[in-house]
Amino acid sequence: MTVSYTLDVSTTNFMSFTRLLLRWRGSVWKAIYQELLVWLLLYFVLSAIYRFVLNDEQRKIFEDTTYYCYKSTELIPVTFILGFFVNLVVRRWWEMLKNIGWVDNTSLYIATYVEGTDDKARMIRRNIVRYMVLVQAMVLRDISVPIRRRFPTLETLQVAGFMSTEEMKKLNGIPTRHARYWIPMQWAMMLVKRARREGSITTDFAVHDLLTRLREYRTALGTLLCYDWVPVPLVYVQVVTLAVRCYFLICLMGRQFVKDTNHDAVNSSIDIYIPLLTIIQFVFYYGWLKVAEALLNPLGEDDDDFEINYLLDRNLQAALTIVDYTEDRQPTLEKDIFWS
Amino acid sequence: MTVSYTLDVSTTNFMSFTRLLLRWRGSVWKAIYQELLVWLLLYFVLSAIYRFVLNDEQRKIFEDTTYYCYKSTELIPVTFILGFFVNLVVRRWWEMLKNIGWVDNTSLYIATYVEGTDDKARMIRRNIVRYMVLVQAMVLRDISVPIRRRFPTLETLQVAGFMSTEEMKKLNGIPTRHARYWIPMQWAMMLVKRARREGSITTDFAVHDLLTRLREYRTALGTLLCYDWVPVPLVYVQVVTLAVRCYFLICLMGRQFVKDTNHDAVNSSIDIYIPLLTIIQFVFYYGWLKVAEALLNPLGEDDDDFEINYLLDRNLQAALTIVDYTEDRQPTLEKDIFWS
Amino acid sequence: MTVSYTLDVSTTNFMSFTRLLLRWRGSVWKAIYQELLVWLLLYFVLSAIYRFVLNDEQRKIFEDTTYYCYKSTELIPVTFILGFFVNLVVRRWWEMLKNIGWVDNTSLYIATYVEGTDDKARMIRRNIVRYMVLVQAMVLRDISVPIRRRFPTLETLQVAGFMSTEEMKKLNGIPTRHARYWIPMQWAMMLVKRARREGSITTDFAVHDLLTRLREYRTALGTLLCYDWVPVPLVYVQVVTLAVRCYFLICLMGRQFVKDTNHDAVNSSIDIYIPLLTIIQFVFYYGWLKVAEALLNPLGEDDDDFEINYLLDRNLQAALTIVDYTEDRQPTLEKDIFWS
Amino acid sequence: MTVSYTLDVSTTNFMSFTRLLLRWRGSVWKAIYQELLVWLLLYFVLSAIYRFVLNDEQRKIFEDTTYYCYKSTELIPVTFILGFFVNLVVRRWWEMLKNIGWVDNTSLYIATYVEGTDDKARMIRRNIVRYMVLVQAMVLRDISVPIRRRFPTLETLQVAGFMSTEEMKKLNGIPTRHARYWIPMQWAMMLVKRARREGSITTDFAVHDLLTRLREYRTALGTLLCYDWVPVPLVYVQVVTLAVRCYFLICLMGRQFVKDTNHDAVNSSIDIYIPLLTIIQFVFYYGWLKVAEALLNPLGEDDDDFEINYLLDRNLQAALTIVDYTEDRQPTLEKDIFWS
Amino acid sequence: MTVSYTLDVSTTNFMSFTRLLLRWRGSVWKAIYQELLVWLLLYFVLSAIYRFVLNDEQRKIFEDTTYYCYKSTELIPVTFILGFFVNLVVRRWWEMLKNIGWVDNTSLYIATYVEGTDDKARMIRRNIVRYMVLVQAMVLRDISVPIRRRFPTLETLQVAGFMSTEEMKKLNGIPTRHARYWIPMQWAMMLVKRARREGSITTDFAVHDLLTRLREYRTALGTLLCYDWVPVPLVYVQVVTLAVRCYFLICLMGRQFVKDTNHDAVNSSIDIYIPLLTIIQFVFYYGWLKVAEALLNPLGEDDDDFEINYLLDRNLQAALTIVDYTEDRQPTLEKDIFWS
Repeated sequence: MTVSYTLDVSTTNFMSFTRLLLRWRGSVWKAIYQELLVWLLLYFVLSAIYRFVLNDEQRKIFEDTTYYCYKSTELIPVTFILGFFVNLVVRRWWEMLKNIGWVDNTSLYIATYVEGTDDKARMIRRNIVRYMVLVQAMVLRDISVPIRRRFPTLETLQVAGFMSTEEMKKLNGIPTRHARYWIPMQWAMMLVKRARREGSITTDFAVHDLLTRLREYRTALGTLLCYDWVPVPLVYVQVVTLAVRCYFLICLMGRQFVKDTNHDAVNSSIDIYIPLLTIIQFVFYYGWLKVAEALLNPLGEDDDDFEINYLLDRNLQAALTIVDYTEDRQPTLEKDIFWS
Repeated sequence: MTVSYTLDVSTTNFMSFTRLLLRWRGSVWKAIYQELLVWLLLYFVLSAIYRFVLNDEQRKIFEDTTYYCYKSTELIPVTFILGFFVNLVVRRWWEMLKNIGWVDNTSLYIATYVEGTDDKARMIRRNIVRYMVLVQAMVLRDISVPIRRRFPTLETLQVAGFMSTEEMKKLNGIPTRHARYWIPMQWAMMLVKRARREGSITTDFAVHDLLTRLREYRTALGTLLCYDWVPVPLVYVQVVTLAVRCYFLICLMGRQFVKDTNHDAVNSSIDIYIPLLTIIQFVFYYGWLKVAEALLNPLGEDDDDFEINYLLDRNLQAALTIVDYTEDRQPTLEKDIFWS
Repeated sequence: MTVSYTLDVSTTNFMSFTRLLLRWRGSVWKAIYQELLVWLLLYFVLSAIYRFVLNDEQRKIFEDTTYYCYKSTELIPVTFILGFFVNLVVRRWWEMLKNIGWVDNTSLYIATYVEGTDDKARMIRRNIVRYMVLVQAMVLRDISVPIRRRFPTLETLQVAGFMSTEEMKKLNGIPTRHARYWIPMQWAMMLVKRARREGSITTDFAVHDLLTRLREYRTALGTLLCYDWVPVPLVYVQVVTLAVRCYFLICLMGRQFVKDTNHDAVNSSIDIYIPLLTIIQFVFYYGWLKVAEALLNPLGEDDDDFEINYLLDRNLQAALTIVDYTEDRQPTLEKDIFWS
Repeated sequence: MTVSYTLDVSTTNFMSFTRLLLRWRGSVWKAIYQELLVWLLLYFVLSAIYRFVLNDEQRKIFEDTTYYCYKSTELIPVTFILGFFVNLVVRRWWEMLKNIGWVDNTSLYIATYVEGTDDKARMIRRNIVRYMVLVQAMVLRDISVPIRRRFPTLETLQVAGFMSTEEMKKLNGIPTRHARYWIPMQWAMMLVKRARREGSITTDFAVHDLLTRLREYRTALGTLLCYDWVPVPLVYVQVVTLAVRCYFLICLMGRQFVKDTNHDAVNSSIDIYIPLLTIIQFVFYYGWLKVAEALLNPLGEDDDDFEINYLLDRNLQAALTIVDYTEDRQPTLEKDIFWS
Repeated sequence: MTVSYTLDVSTTNFMSFTRLLLRWRGSVWKAIYQELLVWLLLYFVLSAIYRFVLNDEQRKIFEDTTYYCYKSTELIPVTFILGFFVNLVVRRWWEMLKNIGWVDNTSLYIATYVEGTDDKARMIRRNIVRYMVLVQAMVLRDISVPIRRRFPTLETLQVAGFMSTEEMKKLNGIPTRHARYWIPMQWAMMLVKRARREGSITTDFAVHDLLTRLREYRTALGTLLCYDWVPVPLVYVQVVTLAVRCYFLICLMGRQFVKDTNHDAVNSSIDIYIPLLTIIQFVFYYGWLKVAEALLNPLGEDDDDFEINYLLDRNLQAALTIVDYTEDRQPTLEKDIFWS
């Protein structure tokens, strides 16, 4: 579920952002605390070995290794790689949101263009929007884990009211090896044609406009499928994940406080037992990486993922309400209070 | 309120940008002076302790800590993280501005397409644009604190003339668990249909064009809602805020002027009491962070936020003026002075 | 005025870019020479004080200060801040150019769609395009200093032929507290409607197409106004300007050639009197900053600003010529030389 | 073939990304293991020579060379160049995917607009979409190696059913020195015109809409050809490739573990025989470079390239299925379960 | 001429990119070899002076200067400036390619919409497309050196068949101080209108569609002119060019191999006579700069510039072939092999 905090930062001051830092849901703390604890455990084990177990000669080796590791971390360009990667992932994530499929525009058009208050006209209006949401449900089932879990089979979609038994049969009856996303879309388009033929729609302009709306909606869902079909190249994801993990693996040794008189490392001058700086770095880099990881598949179940289930229900209900709202419920045409 | 300075930099020279630096409203100085003062206070307290309280042994520890902190700041990539983050936030901020909802185009179309100078035609024209601004007011109430404060309830919108009592009742009468932003939009669309049926609009093209304008307007407001619904991931904001704050927390110790003969830090060579360089850095980094914080929610109340209240009033008034301006007030068709 | 050099770099070679470096108008040299001279003056004054005035003890303090300043400059991330800022400003600048308002497309449409060679048809055609350019002139008066200077009042616009006396009266007669940019636009749209009613325009398609062109033109100018209304946040501009200026202020001391045996700074090893490297840096950073400053308001009077005055005149003249060019001046329909 | 992993990262946790790291197909390991092995071989040969072959004087030279190489690597900005380059290549790669040509929208429009269940209407529908896929096949043959290998001649396209013998003859019969991609497109457009003339298409709107769809499809394929015609400038590719290769060539010497008492290099403090850090760097930089190399031509045969062959077959089959699905197979118009 | 290499990198492996490195046309080697040779010459002259001419005292000064220069290069942010600049230039370059003007879409529309096989209909079709290419030729003459050289006067365009003698006269007969690019465009639009009036075009939709195509084409060429009229600000180009050149000027001294016992520079530890690292850097930075320089004006004559002359000829020939291809040459309507 998306974590909203916009209203909290309506005015920018020190306290509002401090409160933001103290949140738990969707926060950097929740994202990293497990890995940070494991890392700290390993760090203190190594530290204890150095302080209590090793003899002088072994300590010398430990110190040299620490220095080697300390210097090595400087050569891993974590910041830069993360910066470019997050940049790319954020752009994809936002594109996916824009293409997730909103039915409002089309519903308003259907309500305006498909006239008539009898049952048939109402059925046409309701069915077109229902088919649209059905396509969305079918697409999301294939690319989103929570939707797949909610609707493991087409039957469950039927039970939930997204389609009738007959429609499910027709859907399964098409002989094709490829995805069937287009079928309900075609039903919707054919319904538009029928409405025009039977007079519920009175102009060719309306047909053109409605088909355009349906096409745009389908194109958005098709784009969404593309983002699933062709993800960020695996190599890129691996490189970034590796960079961050190796960095902190090397830090396990490299940030130990050792009494090293030969080398001039940060942690040689003073022993504060707890690697404060490295913890801060861990929060930054791991937090940043977690942003990228969560946004890589925004249709999943992380704190920052889109509320897909909510969206699907909302789409169906809103669309049906909109197309059921007919002209006879309009407010009367009256003069406004600025009339002069 | 937006801070405008464009005319001041019409010509680029040293003085014009110097004047820009000396501004207060919307300036970096106003944004950071409180936090800078607190930081300086803490810095001088620590400095006094070092100079007047500690004995030699304690000073040694203080000096080592200073060196450790001095070195540590180099490992916090503030610049880079801020650069990428501000880049992202600025893009969002500009997109929000583009989608904030302008009624001018639609009003001009309505004035052109909905003909007639009688009261009914005028009512249709005025009501359509009023419904548009009403949707904007309803949307902004939910995402902008100043608008929410101005219109805490729907009743206040009605009192301010955005809708009539009857319209408010109809609005509340729709049984839906979701947002009602679409209802006035549908009223507007239905009015277009009615105007076509009753002859105020004379062509199907006009219907198509008007619906397109209304749809684009609604889509813009919908996009605005998306930007509120799915903000920049909280983790990202936290990481950036933490990076900057930790940096200056560590600087509190790391930039102390100490007599350290063992280490070669900037502040070991000369004691100038006031950490000038760090103050400069504070202005940069904190100022940059403040840019990002203010732009995160441009619908709030910071100096640099959009003038939402002004926009809403201006939209309503301008739209009503435009649709009231009818053809009989056109200038006569005459030859221009370049006629030959 | 824009500085064009594209033809000079038609072929890429050492000489063509060397010639580019030697240009004066719009060059980095012209942009920075004044500030560079002042900086050098201050630098040499400090240098002379060190060499001729100070005694040994004072020199020691001077040397330590130099070292402190030398090290400090490393902590000011000028390059990075400038890179991100210039990136942002260049994008805005180009968007502004794209939205500056070109009348050619609309004029060609008017010439094609509004038929008739009699005076009335010609008046309609000429007036529509004149109204368009009038809007542009009104908008630019409010956001561009050179246009404001050329047309300080609406009367001057009338004298220059952009509108007739009657039109100016009508314009001033509208009671509104907001900008009147939309009024001539509405006149143009109403003229299209009238032309359709009176038969100069023969199809509804033409009305639709012409209104679309007029709307796009108005939207472009509206976007231009937005860029003026909501500039790059002042804090950002201040941070960048400060970063560069502080950098070179600190360099005044930090790049002095001193005989410092304790520290290992660039300028301690050899004394070449003239701070060559810093001059080079000055040219880079100040030049880069000047790019950003000039592009911040491209409607001003810098060498690199758009040629607004030229554009306005060109728009009016070109538009009138286009709409006056009627079908009877077409070349005869003949076979081309590739006919077979 | 594209490597999909999106469902694996539905929830972000340590294990899911660890599993991602262990993949082979499309992984960084598969991409670099050969070159890494060669590099390690050369490294160990050099290492063995230093340890077992050289005398003291020669060792001294070896050590100095190592230090020189060690320092040199710092001056090669691999990270930065790679970051900018990958950024550019990823953008191109995604644009290519968006323009690869999808027939679904057009097919749905054809199924809706071209009416009639007789053979002729069906033939028109089927031929239009077949011509579309034929153009795609012709374009891809010229820019994609796997498609070229599958269809070495036009005859093979004919045998595979993309066109009839007569069509192939007509295609070859056009006298032109340039590409013939436009011919089947023109056939499709002419078929639309014929369908309108003969009554299968009943409105001019339909003609307009269908031509728009066909044009958009053709434009996409034209853009794809542009990306092939004008690739990323060769110099840029060479610079990036050289940067990475030179870096690791220099590392061969610079990362040797030597007993160097004069210089303070990472690898002088401790001898761990295996250059762990450099291997990690190799994985990062080479992996990153491989991302760019694979995406440079996404129509090739790498693991991460688009599944072109699949796409072509899918397009043809899906399109034919869609246009064959006629109105008489619609589900009956019934009330949905939310009806009230 | 564009250098194509896409098919070579169909599969990503070590050898394919090695072959890419060995290319000459359009390569980094061809771009920089002259300047590299000059640089090396100067370098060796300085080196010889140091080794054979100077006495010990002079050598000391030389060594200090070398160290000063060596350290100075670190302060010139070549990588960063180049990265941002190339980023900007590449984006412009690609936008220019997209707007260079393709006639295919319009030609296909003309062939479809303008009916009739008699000479007059054919003349109309041919003339419209010829006028389009004529505009392109006129525009490119003004902004592209190779086209200007090929067509130094309008007469040469007439001789080449782009226009008839009468058309040239009409073109010159328009009294205007501004560019005449719009005139042939207007001829084309008027021809469309005439074709509609005389019945070659049968629907208003066709007129709308054809005007839209012509307008888009003209807008693209207008955008191209904008890119020429308002280039990348000269200051920016100068700053980048200066940065790279100064860097290597300073390297001439700073990378000399000297026996400097006081300072710890890369080139003090070992003398390998040839400045290998600096040569590598030269290839990188100069190569990168050359990318930018060549792309700054892609309408010129560099290896990487667009093949403008080819494009112009191709446009004319392809367009004429397309509009001459009439419906009677369609393949017969037959069942495809997948028919069932």
